[in-house]
Amino acid sequence: DPSQDTYFSAEPLDRLSERRSDEAWQQDKQHRPDSVFLLFSNLSPLVRSLEPSTGSGAQTSLCRFSSSLVKELLLKPGSVLVFLGVERRRPSSSSQTSSEPPAWFAINSTEDPEILLKLGGEKDLFWARRPNRDLLNLSQDEAGILAQARAVLAWHSHYAFCPTCGSSSRSEEAGYKRTCTNASCFSLQGVHNTSYPRVDPVVIMLVLHPDGEQCLLGRKKIFPTMMFSCLSGFIEPGESVESAVRREVEEESGVKVGWVRYVACQPWPVPSSLMIGCLAVALSTHIKVDENEIEEARWFPRQQVIDALCRGGSPALFLPPQQTIAHQLVKHWIGCTSNL
Amino acid sequence: DPSQDTYFSAEPLDRLSERRSDEAWQQDKQHRPDSVFLLFSNLSPLVRSLEPSTGSGAQTSLCRFSSSLVKELLLKPGSVLVFLGVERRRPSSSSQTSSEPPAWFAINSTEDPEILLKLGGEKDLFWARRPNRDLLNLSQDEAGILAQARAVLAWHSHYAFCPTCGSSSRSEEAGYKRTCTNASCFSLQGVHNTSYPRVDPVVIMLVLHPDGEQCLLGRKKIFPTMMFSCLSGFIEPGESVESAVRREVEEESGVKVGWVRYVACQPWPVPSSLMIGCLAVALSTHIKVDENEIEEARWFPRQQVIDALCRGGSPALFLPPQQTIAHQLVKHWIGCTSNL
Ligand SMILES: Nc1ncnc2c1ncn2[C@@H]1O[C@H](COP(=O)(O)O)[C@@H](O)[C@H]1O
Ligand SMILES: Nc1ncnc2c1ncn2[C@@H]1O[C@H](COP(=O)(O)O)[C@@H](O)[C@H]1O
Ligand SMILES: [Mg+2]
Ligand SMILES: [Mg+2]
Ligand SMILES: [Mg+2]
Ligand SMILES: [Mg+2]
Ligand SMILES: [Mg+2]
Ligand SMILES: [Mg+2]
Ligand SMILES: [Zn+2]
Ligand SMILES: [Zn+2]
Repeated sequence: DPSQDTYFSAEPLDRLSERRSDEAWQQDKQHRPDSVFLLFSNLSPLVRSLEPSTGSGAQTSLCRFSSSLVKELLLKPGSVLVFLGVERRRPSSSSQTSSEPPAWFAINSTEDPEILLKLGGEKDLFWARRPNRDLLNLSQDEAGILAQARAVLAWHSHYAFCPTCGSSSRSEEAGYKRTCTNASCFSLQGVHNTSYPRVDPVVIMLVLHPDGEQCLLGRKKIFPTMMFSCLSGFIEPGESVESAVRREVEEESGVKVGWVRYVACQPWPVPSSLMIGCLAVALSTHIKVDENEIEEARWFPRQQVIDALCRGGSPALFLPPQQTIAHQLVKHWIGCTSNL
Repeated sequence: DPSQDTYFSAEPLDRLSERRSDEAWQQDKQHRPDSVFLLFSNLSPLVRSLEPSTGSGAQTSLCRFSSSLVKELLLKPGSVLVFLGVERRRPSSSSQTSSEPPAWFAINSTEDPEILLKLGGEKDLFWARRPNRDLLNLSQDEAGILAQARAVLAWHSHYAFCPTCGSSSRSEEAGYKRTCTNASCFSLQGVHNTSYPRVDPVVIMLVLHPDGEQCLLGRKKIFPTMMFSCLSGFIEPGESVESAVRREVEEESGVKVGWVRYVACQPWPVPSSLMIGCLAVALSTHIKVDENEIEEARWFPRQQVIDALCRGGSPALFLPPQQTIAHQLVKHWIGCTSNL
């Protein structure tokens, strides 16, 4: 079932949103020795390379700091702190039930990254700067935590001013709200989305040929040679998921779509999208690409797609890596139809 | 199929996004006699009451202006203009194929609403100010157009300043982009969501009891007496639809959820949400409401829900009107299970 565990969607922490406005609780957790802090420099997390021998499949791991190591950093003016949640108790570990589970936080810092790096102490630490590569090698659980942390921190870094009046805003509720500092601002009357983190819904769809034996994939100019992926686009105001799928496919490829079905979704924390993955069936087959966005779009026969998934022989195309929902949608189609 | 036509989700216009940055085309359409302008005063649309005899079921209709009537209004500093799209050609009307289909626009004005009202000329025009009542009586097609227009206009009215640097921003691309006026602003380097309309994804879910014979509904303090609805909440950064359903249900009612399935969605233009409707199955049954948000939550047996849908006898509860996705989710459950 692809809707269960796409990369970036695990939730190993309980977000405990009712504690966000409990200042005393937040302060206490920030000073506990068992609390865990993740460090970001301009939105890139500090990570370490794992030995292949660890066996989890992950090649990179988030670097974890204790409260004593980050205490001074938290006082710097450019630092932003976000509460991520507490570890979910395993029902089995009954010996621990009296103590509270550890709390996790994320810090974004604007200090010199070279100096920050020394905080980590060890060698082999590095800033995971290339979002589409360095961030895809974490364990499922760490990918889930990273998605939450990076998306909220990205919001703070781009939304430091009130969009309604232009005054500066300040972080509140453990990093989940920004309040305008101008007491007469309209944004302070009632509840407005200007105060809350932004999540951009995006549709991403595998379009099937009316013959059921081919699918539509496209490539942007920036893609590596021979790589093709699902079409995708931002949902616009006033649109349903299904309408956005039809509009984006027609805009980007000229193909008309009828039937649309939701399959699974994936948070994408660069900066903060929610990729809503669908299967769709075409009503027309002639392709005319929107050349601003797409370099080429083609119908690929099922067998070529299977070869690309298995990376066998000399494939006609490459697909994005398995951590992406585009890959999972393609796999889902092949899986569904091969079982019929 | 509830995913097809929820209220507010119709798309009778072709948004023609490739024309948004074509200034000459936009100017031309703004002056054509067959172009249609909708008028909003502080985000409330000007509407007229329809005679019951019109038969479409709609009780209210959007007031349509021609370009000559709004020409002066467009020059006022507080006016915002948004291009909505062009009418989709019916394949049958072959006689029209040589002329272009009419273009639609929406204007939000901050002028005195009493004076604006006179522009309409007729009596029986009024500003549809109560979003959850006046906006629910349009035809399906007008509801779809209204959803797009109101959501984009609401974004302009709350996002007139650049969130990255606090400078003022200006509307571009026919109302689908706001660009910072500060030439050294970081938001001008690369593509950032700060420039584009915001859509807030929300989960709304009907939670079924493990026995399959009851569903969980809740009420907020502001609801009319005896009205109960589906639980709902904003999707947070880094979350999937399925995780958000589980988190919000547990936060608001204390009930744990396992299985989650997408059913349908609904754009909600107050101000600009995308309601993602799901069915979910509970793993626990004890209710403990979050009293900040919910006044009461209860398991309702199927028969009581059927009575509420049919508005027969003396129902134990009222449901939100049929234009809401909450109503459609309840109906979907009853429909699915009654056919088994
Ligand atoms: N929220 C958003 N964030 C970034 N780009 C957006 C957003 N909304 C619309 N766009 C525009 O959509 C383009 C990408 O097209 P698409 O993903 O196909 O919708 C970007 O280059 C922007 O011009
Ligand atoms: N984008 C948003 N717009 C408005 N309120 C939000 C948003 N995100 C989070 N909230 C908060 O969520 C509350 C409503 O709770 P819920 O709908 O259950 O998530 C509001 O009162 C706000 O405090
Ligand atoms: Mg596109
Ligand atoms: Mg787009
Ligand atoms: Mg696209
Ligand atoms: Mg809630
Ligand atoms: Mg919430
Ligand atoms: Mg809620
Ligand atoms: Zn403000
Ligand atoms: Zn700016």
